[in-house]
Amino acid sequence: MIAVLTDFGVTDNYNGVVVATIKKLNPYANVEFITPQSKNFNVIAAAYQLYTSFKYFPRKTIFTVVVDPGVGTSRKAIIVKTKNYYFVGPDNGVLSWAANHDKIVEIRNFTNSNLYLSHSISNTFHGRDIFAVASAFLSLGLSMEIFGEKLTKIEKIPFQYSKEKNKHLGRVVFIDHFGNVATNIPFSVVNHISRVLIKDNEVKVKQVKSFGYAGRGELLVYENGYGFLEIGLREDSAANVLNVKEGDEICIEEYTQEDFSHFI
Amino acid sequence: MIAVLTDFGVTDNYNGVVVATIKKLNPYANVEFITPQSKNFNVIAAAYQLYTSFKYFPRKTIFTVVVDPGVGTSRKAIIVKTKNYYFVGPDNGVLSWAANHDKIVEIRNFTNSNLYLSHSISNTFHGRDIFAVASAFLSLGLSMEIFGEKLTKIEKIPFQYSKEKNKHLGRVVFIDHFGNVATNIPFSVVNHISRVLIKDNEVKVKQVKSFGYAGRGELLVYENGYGFLEIGLREDSAANVLNVKEGDEICIEEYTQEDFSHFI
Amino acid sequence: MIAVLTDFGVTDNYNGVVVATIKKLNPYANVEFITPQSKNFNVIAAAYQLYTSFKYFPRKTIFTVVVDPGVGTSRKAIIVKTKNYYFVGPDNGVLSWAANHDKIVEIRNFTNSNLYLSHSISNTFHGRDIFAVASAFLSLGLSMEIFGEKLTKIEKIPFQYSKEKNKHLGRVVFIDHFGNVATNIPFSVVNHISRVLIKDNEVKVKQVKSFGYAGRGELLVYENGYGFLEIGLREDSAANVLNVKEGDEICIEEYTQEDFSHFI
Repeated sequence: MIAVLTDFGVTDNYNGVVVATIKKLNPYANVEFITPQSKNFNVIAAAYQLYTSFKYFPRKTIFTVVVDPGVGTSRKAIIVKTKNYYFVGPDNGVLSWAANHDKIVEIRNFTNSNLYLSHSISNTFHGRDIFAVASAFLSLGLSMEIFGEKLTKIEKIPFQYSKEKNKHLGRVVFIDHFGNVATNIPFSVVNHISRVLIKDNEVKVKQVKSFGYAGRGELLVYENGYGFLEIGLREDSAANVLNVKEGDEICIEEYTQEDFSHFI
Repeated sequence: MIAVLTDFGVTDNYNGVVVATIKKLNPYANVEFITPQSKNFNVIAAAYQLYTSFKYFPRKTIFTVVVDPGVGTSRKAIIVKTKNYYFVGPDNGVLSWAANHDKIVEIRNFTNSNLYLSHSISNTFHGRDIFAVASAFLSLGLSMEIFGEKLTKIEKIPFQYSKEKNKHLGRVVFIDHFGNVATNIPFSVVNHISRVLIKDNEVKVKQVKSFGYAGRGELLVYENGYGFLEIGLREDSAANVLNVKEGDEICIEEYTQEDFSHFI
Repeated sequence: MIAVLTDFGVTDNYNGVVVATIKKLNPYANVEFITPQSKNFNVIAAAYQLYTSFKYFPRKTIFTVVVDPGVGTSRKAIIVKTKNYYFVGPDNGVLSWAANHDKIVEIRNFTNSNLYLSHSISNTFHGRDIFAVASAFLSLGLSMEIFGEKLTKIEKIPFQYSKEKNKHLGRVVFIDHFGNVATNIPFSVVNHISRVLIKDNEVKVKQVKSFGYAGRGELLVYENGYGFLEIGLREDSAANVLNVKEGDEICIEEYTQEDFSHFI
């Protein structure tokens, strides 16, 4: 199985050509999309989408990721073998959260241009000419050393979550199409939420198990489907109300022992 | 074959994860989308999309429907066996038009949590943890009784079409991306249209066989691809011109014998 | 393999029903999308998308194209066999650039209504009732003569590229979802660009190999992934800045010998 994540979008023919190129080399490849329309040029959003989805795919799935604002420059095209999967994409950090989480076994710099798509090595469509081809060849059983020399590390995107006493400092990492605001704060480490600050402004939220438990118009905080703290609004967009975007700071303050002491 | 209908959208990774979860359990499942981007939280629109499409799929297709504003609350997760198909989804009425039309044979309340996705029973992602899993297990041949106790009925959405003398009273049930306005009035029961009223305002329309026969700017009434009366505008959005949304009332008045009597 | 290109969009169930109809007739068909959401009623954009993508698909792929503003009128439904592929769609020119490029071998007018989808010959959903069915039957090995009488030619869309001395006169043929402006001017015939004129206004552009080499805010001219001259803007929409749409004129002037003469 080959799982594709791109920012090519559903209105253009780029995803169709990526699938075609894979199928022309390996007609038996089973190609599915993580998403055909990740946010344009947004490497953080794509890294989060890959990170939160990869483990649901069958073992040995080959992930083909093309969110690549530096296409055609000197950034490398890499193939990463991890404990359970293969990852193919530009070396701009987009693969780093997922690949590191699954434990990297081997990295190759895909420089063997004999394998590139023959009729045209475009400077602007490496998704087709390089990444689709690498994925198809991997699915056919080619071994890692054929693609190019070994690398010792890949580019990383900093995760930027930290805990200081009763404060969890994180970032907005993804806003989904409902307008739910996902953060990189693991929900399991948060105990009793006292205050939520976004860009230093306090936000009134209600902690719930799921949307169904809330009235309309209330900002909600809950564990999202991938184990992260998320802020949503029932049948509406929390991102619009909060006016946030990927990368914005968020701070969750927990109640301390002291806050409770006068009850005891 | 498993046919998926969700409001998850093409920009998020939720549909990708649903497909992954199915394929991880059954690598031979053939997963296709009715639509990956039904209208957010719009149970009527999704019910119409399922109702109008199900019969075009091969017999024994398993329909997996996730338009589920009540996710995580006490609404049931159900599996419905009909004469020719299986339907999996929340018991919020979204399955009712299609399942009832094909004749319900058996209903199960999917409460056997041993079958739920092991690593995380999320409160917000039942599409993955419950509905995808149920569909995959059905496609592997598991029998209905394993999923949970029998139910005698499912939640229904009222269809709200009626005929009174020469008046057909119905609703707007779907506005497509072209802006065509589909109603729940079966075209075959309408004879000679005299007047069209939307929210009590008369609308000037021209009855045609298809768009190609009309000039630009004329509101058209015709039989849509699913046998229902629809109002469209050639290469433009009728919904914008009429300012309607799903659920709005529509009344079609036919000419009566009397209207014609002075000609005879 | 059946490759589908429609303007039905991802929010409606029309594409799902096309896939269902194909799979009901041929469960072993492998259906992929070139794009599920080409621009509404835009025959030029769809012709360009087909033309630039078809050769990446495996030989014998059956292309099913439904961008069909004249649906239900007298325009023909045609099946075109070319050197390497089959093309199915309305005879409105949308197939012409691709089919002619691959060399047409045989054309049939699909008038054998015994093969049309039985339960409903809709006037508005020929994508399902005629084109999906034709593609499924072709994939099952039915021979061309069964579909209808031979035709000697298909409708063409004029390509409208020409060269006059040092001027290349062409058109905007596609604006992708990033806002990049593709023209029908083959990049390989252009040597040293002196001036770019869009609708007679000179546009300042920088010639680059790919986006990564440019700063933000600079209009760029480069060879796109399909060999055509394209104008883009790094991580932004060139189409918005230039205020162009498909069909608009573009002129590329090259330096002449004279322009260089005083250097020699």
